[in-house]
Amino acid sequence: MKTVFDTLEKWGVKKYSIIDKQAIKEITLGASILATGGGGDPEIGLLWTYRVLDEGKTVVMIDPMDIPDEIFAASPACLGAPVVLTEKPPSYDVLNNAIQTLQEYLGKKLEATIPIECGGVNSTVAYAAAGEFCVPVIDVDGMNRAFPELQMTSWVTNGVNASPLASCDERGTVTIINAKDDNRMAENLARRAAMAYGGNSWIAAYPMNGRQIKQASIPNSQSIAWELGKAVLYARQKHLDPVKEMLDNLKKTRNVTGKRVFTGKIVDIGREFGGEASKGFSLGRVKMEGIGEYKGSVAELDFQNEWLCLRVDGKVRCLPPDLITIVDPETGEPIRTDIMKYGYRGSVVLIPAHDRMRTPRGLELFGPRYFGYDMDYVPVEKLNEEEA
Amino acid sequence: MKTVFDTLEKWGVKKYSIIDKQAIKEITLGASILATGGGGDPEIGLLWTYRVLDEGKTVVMIDPMDIPDEIFAASPACLGAPVVLTEKPPSYDVLNNAIQTLQEYLGKKLEATIPIECGGVNSTVAYAAAGEFCVPVIDVDGMNRAFPELQMTSWVTNGVNASPLASCDERGTVTIINAKDDNRMAENLARRAAMAYGGNSWIAAYPMNGRQIKQASIPNSQSIAWELGKAVLYARQKHLDPVKEMLDNLKKTRNVTGKRVFTGKIVDIGREFGGEASKGFSLGRVKMEGIGEYKGSVAELDFQNEWLCLRVDGKVRCLPPDLITIVDPETGEPIRTDIMKYGYRGSVVLIPAHDRMRTPRGLELFGPRYFGYDMDYVPVEKLNEEEA
Repeated sequence: MKTVFDTLEKWGVKKYSIIDKQAIKEITLGASILATGGGGDPEIGLLWTYRVLDEGKTVVMIDPMDIPDEIFAASPACLGAPVVLTEKPPSYDVLNNAIQTLQEYLGKKLEATIPIECGGVNSTVAYAAAGEFCVPVIDVDGMNRAFPELQMTSWVTNGVNASPLASCDERGTVTIINAKDDNRMAENLARRAAMAYGGNSWIAAYPMNGRQIKQASIPNSQSIAWELGKAVLYARQKHLDPVKEMLDNLKKTRNVTGKRVFTGKIVDIGREFGGEASKGFSLGRVKMEGIGEYKGSVAELDFQNEWLCLRVDGKVRCLPPDLITIVDPETGEPIRTDIMKYGYRGSVVLIPAHDRMRTPRGLELFGPRYFGYDMDYVPVEKLNEEEA
Repeated sequence: MKTVFDTLEKWGVKKYSIIDKQAIKEITLGASILATGGGGDPEIGLLWTYRVLDEGKTVVMIDPMDIPDEIFAASPACLGAPVVLTEKPPSYDVLNNAIQTLQEYLGKKLEATIPIECGGVNSTVAYAAAGEFCVPVIDVDGMNRAFPELQMTSWVTNGVNASPLASCDERGTVTIINAKDDNRMAENLARRAAMAYGGNSWIAAYPMNGRQIKQASIPNSQSIAWELGKAVLYARQKHLDPVKEMLDNLKKTRNVTGKRVFTGKIVDIGREFGGEASKGFSLGRVKMEGIGEYKGSVAELDFQNEWLCLRVDGKVRCLPPDLITIVDPETGEPIRTDIMKYGYRGSVVLIPAHDRMRTPRGLELFGPRYFGYDMDYVPVEKLNEEEA
């Protein structure tokens, strides 16, 4: 049987990372912090990958710059409302079914997986699928954060399409979608399929070649998540401030200045419920009251699976696509929109989006106006200038 | 180039009907009467088939009993809210795209078309597609009426599945659905795709072989519609009562006793609007006030694309799957749920459903309880006994 190492040898790839349980734990933690409140329950992605490793399968990650231009890769992912996933963890063969369906439809064999986003589920399932299909994971993604809709990627802003894609449920239902370059239509169809399935779907999307991966992805997105996860685990072990470690680490790996702008307690959660009414998302708004140095201040956050917009005392402090992440100030564990509860304490951390997400086309596709805000995009650095 | 006659010769089929413009006009009229208020604008199906004939293509219909067991056939159809179709007539290649997509997905070439239902659009597009693909139309359908949902067929009650199916829109979007034996899921996914497209979709569904066509269809359903159409046109020409001609004809072709139970004027139409709210259907209720011998009586009809239930003066007179059709008493032209207006005059005619639609499994799938009525099915003959 051909192993992933045979493939790497064929490609002439000499540098790779072996993803063991410790590594996937670190990557999952980092990815779920970058997931900006969404991305689903990291426990699910983690256990899934553990299981693949326990079966003796090998998971390796390689740098995008080392892959041949012509290889065929795709993104395995979960598409739906994260809370539904937490209520009903997946069976393990549904994602394999999605990949196999896409392979058959395109008449091509998968040669690598590409994580679609940073998220507790959607980063890690790319590793699990890579192990299952004996292919490497490429150290990229399409966002370096999580976003609610399928088309909100650097891939689309660079002309790579989300479909053809295959969408499956656990009963073996298969939907193949080909919306060509209408990526909002691909999202619309995929979302509706997920709703028909009961709230969640497992997809294999964004079929692309090696050249497209290199040109259109957020490069080394997985390494950024991995280093971030390591930094937070280190802080826990050494009883250091996880937020400070996190920000120092992002400065080092990405050369961006993140910022803690609020620490408080959740005092109100307004959710829009109902599968159809909420259109297959976890949707709503949350209010936090400041504690410690932020006492007397009020933070308000809108969410659509992910945190979208932060206002502190009525003033906008962060707009999409910049990152809002709320973490437990003691452990650095992210607070997710799908499971947060009244009384949770969290530090709100803002991180500039990757440059590949801040292009004019990017702001059109996932800037404030797309999400219904009557505001032009202002970079998070500028919105928080006077505080610097 | 192979013609449809080469195929018939290969199959040893000696008896066939040439469908010319007069024939398709008669079939379309009969089918739209049997469409029980739904089935879409007959003008659309008619012009479509005219166009195929004008291009010199040949349309022939053959008897199901004459086809080989192993041939591969499928149903080309429109799925969505009929009113949307009337607002925006289709381009002609979208249905071809659906058939081609299904062919590619299954790796088989279409050898015949099978009309999915009796309807102004969905009977006729099977003829148009047959002409386009140089294959015969089989003289069957899955309902011998129209019904709002994809799975409401004698095919499903006899173990033939609606999917794999291909669904297309006019911009070239393609969705392939394979819900295996979960035919309500196939409907759910296909309906949601239609909504994503803007209200309507063009599908190629119910892939089946010759043996399944013979065992599971409503046999000679097209001939029934054709004879009915001829009878109504004859009545118009001879200034006879079209309803009487219609009922006499149904007695002759199907040996069933249909009945005119009401003539009146539409005085109220309650529509549930909004693409999402109405779930991709024309939904609502209509009230008619009796005229002539029915003066003083009130008829109420519920509809979901098709007429579902008739009450006269509060008494239930017809339940699904029995047929309710409302026709203009002067011309026999059917009044459709999607375009009816206040003031329209119509005769309400009740027709017993085909025996293959009245099985226990049929009543489960499209009897009164499926549509939300807290009533057991009572045959229309029994509901109208005292009137006999």
